[in-house]
Amino acid sequence: MINEKRTFSLPIRVYIEDTDIGGIVFYANYLKYFERARTEFIRSLGFELRSGFEDGVSYVVHSINVRYHAPAKLDEVLQVSAEPVKIGRSFIQFKQQVNNSSGEVLVVADVKVACVSLPSGKPRALPESLVCALNGWQVVDL
Amino acid sequence: MINEKRTFSLPIRVYIEDTDIGGIVFYANYLKYFERARTEFIRSLGFELRSGFEDGVSYVVHSINVRYHAPAKLDEVLQVSAEPVKIGRSFIQFKQQVNNSSGEVLVVADVKVACVSLPSGKPRALPESLVCALNGWQVVDL
Amino acid sequence: MINEKRTFSLPIRVYIEDTDIGGIVFYANYLKYFERARTEFIRSLGFELRSGFEDGVSYVVHSINVRYHAPAKLDEVLQVSAEPVKIGRSFIQFKQQVNNSSGEVLVVADVKVACVSLPSGKPRALPESLVCALNGWQVVDL
Amino acid sequence: MINEKRTFSLPIRVYIEDTDIGGIVFYANYLKYFERARTEFIRSLGFELRSGFEDGVSYVVHSINVRYHAPAKLDEVLQVSAEPVKIGRSFIQFKQQVNNSSGEVLVVADVKVACVSLPSGKPRALPESLVCALNGWQVVDL
Repeated sequence: MINEKRTFSLPIRVYIEDTDIGGIVFYANYLKYFERARTEFIRSLGFELRSGFEDGVSYVVHSINVRYHAPAKLDEVLQVSAEPVKIGRSFIQFKQQVNNSSGEVLVVADVKVACVSLPSGKPRALPESLVCALNGWQVVDL
Repeated sequence: MINEKRTFSLPIRVYIEDTDIGGIVFYANYLKYFERARTEFIRSLGFELRSGFEDGVSYVVHSINVRYHAPAKLDEVLQVSAEPVKIGRSFIQFKQQVNNSSGEVLVVADVKVACVSLPSGKPRALPESLVCALNGWQVVDL
Repeated sequence: MINEKRTFSLPIRVYIEDTDIGGIVFYANYLKYFERARTEFIRSLGFELRSGFEDGVSYVVHSINVRYHAPAKLDEVLQVSAEPVKIGRSFIQFKQQVNNSSGEVLVVADVKVACVSLPSGKPRALPESLVCALNGWQVVDL
Repeated sequence: MINEKRTFSLPIRVYIEDTDIGGIVFYANYLKYFERARTEFIRSLGFELRSGFEDGVSYVVHSINVRYHAPAKLDEVLQVSAEPVKIGRSFIQFKQQVNNSSGEVLVVADVKVACVSLPSGKPRALPESLVCALNGWQVVDL
């Protein structure tokens, strides 16, 4: 439908490595899930992280706000989304969400990712080709 | 000195397991450091997590805001603080910080931790003995 | 072809969380990959880990021998296999392997997994239904 | 005492990040402990990993055999040892062990670590100064 929000989403299975003694996913591990979803979203636009590193371009997280609503459990298949909500000169702001298979929202996050030069780690402008792809992704009507 | 703020701080060495391909600590791993510091702070008040689990009392992170200022590097010894800034009926709000050995602030976080009953996972009041210990810790003049 | 060895294999993408400062997958993280592949193999036979836990049946690794031939790198899609080579009364011996997309063998492992009762952690016989499924899986001609 | 075996040992606290749904330390995480102990042993001889990286010298695990005897639990302080048992031209063979505070042996491992050049990853001779330090460490009577 026209104007419907597109959201990239990655299915992620919960394994024993992700759980802790409480029987639920350890709170730091959702940040791994969020990173996987952002990486796959960027890959879906045609960009690989490794070739970025080879070109001296990397991405670091500037800040993150996470709200944990309900825990994910072993064996579940989660849907982890990554939606760019703001594209700056040198950063991308993402809205991310973890849902379980019943559609329940488990965790939501705002993540600001900065583009940096290697090896200095100094901020730099996002590659133009990436900005184009991000803009193209957002404006397409479905 | 009277009225000086007391802050609990834990030295943490950065190992290879903590780093990523960018040569710095992976952003999710600071949440492990924060959890270690909170656990040692609580232990310093006389409370062990495991005996809590055995009594059906556990702690889960409700929300976290993290601001990454500068990256931690391999072999560094960091100081990771945990300061309770608000004690609610069923939660503790922490201010946490990662400093390097030069005193530079690398990462700061606000973390709200909720007390829950096991196995239900439902919120419950903080154990009274813990509240007493937390209050005692805060009001002591140094 | 008749008598051809069947091997269960799981595709696993390498993410930043898996890498270390050397730019390759950290050696402990292959054990996570191996565990994921064993879990998905067991799931393919109709068994979920979580319902095992609920029935007081769990699996712990008794011993592992790992030989690292070549490193896996960021963004690669690996194939991680899990082949049961011996079924004992209370254990399963697996042969496992990590291959890259060119078919190169990166890591091989022998893993002996013991079945235990919860909460005691004492060894117990493998569930009969699992033994049947494992035997059925092995003898089928392709 | 003369001829007594010297063994380097590092105390390591078990945190929630190390545990899994079984309530014990996840089997891959002992490899993190082993790596920390090897790193601290090497540091005790005067060598820092990071400066190695800067000189294009790194260490990768060639093979590991691990035998899990009994599980480590939350809040325990473990002793994790690292003893060089063979020094080759381009590798060090370690014997490593995890003991709990009662002295019970929980996990034992043989770990062969190879010295490699960066960025090629090709094997190279161990730095002479490290070989000297390793030999000196072994022959000293206590």
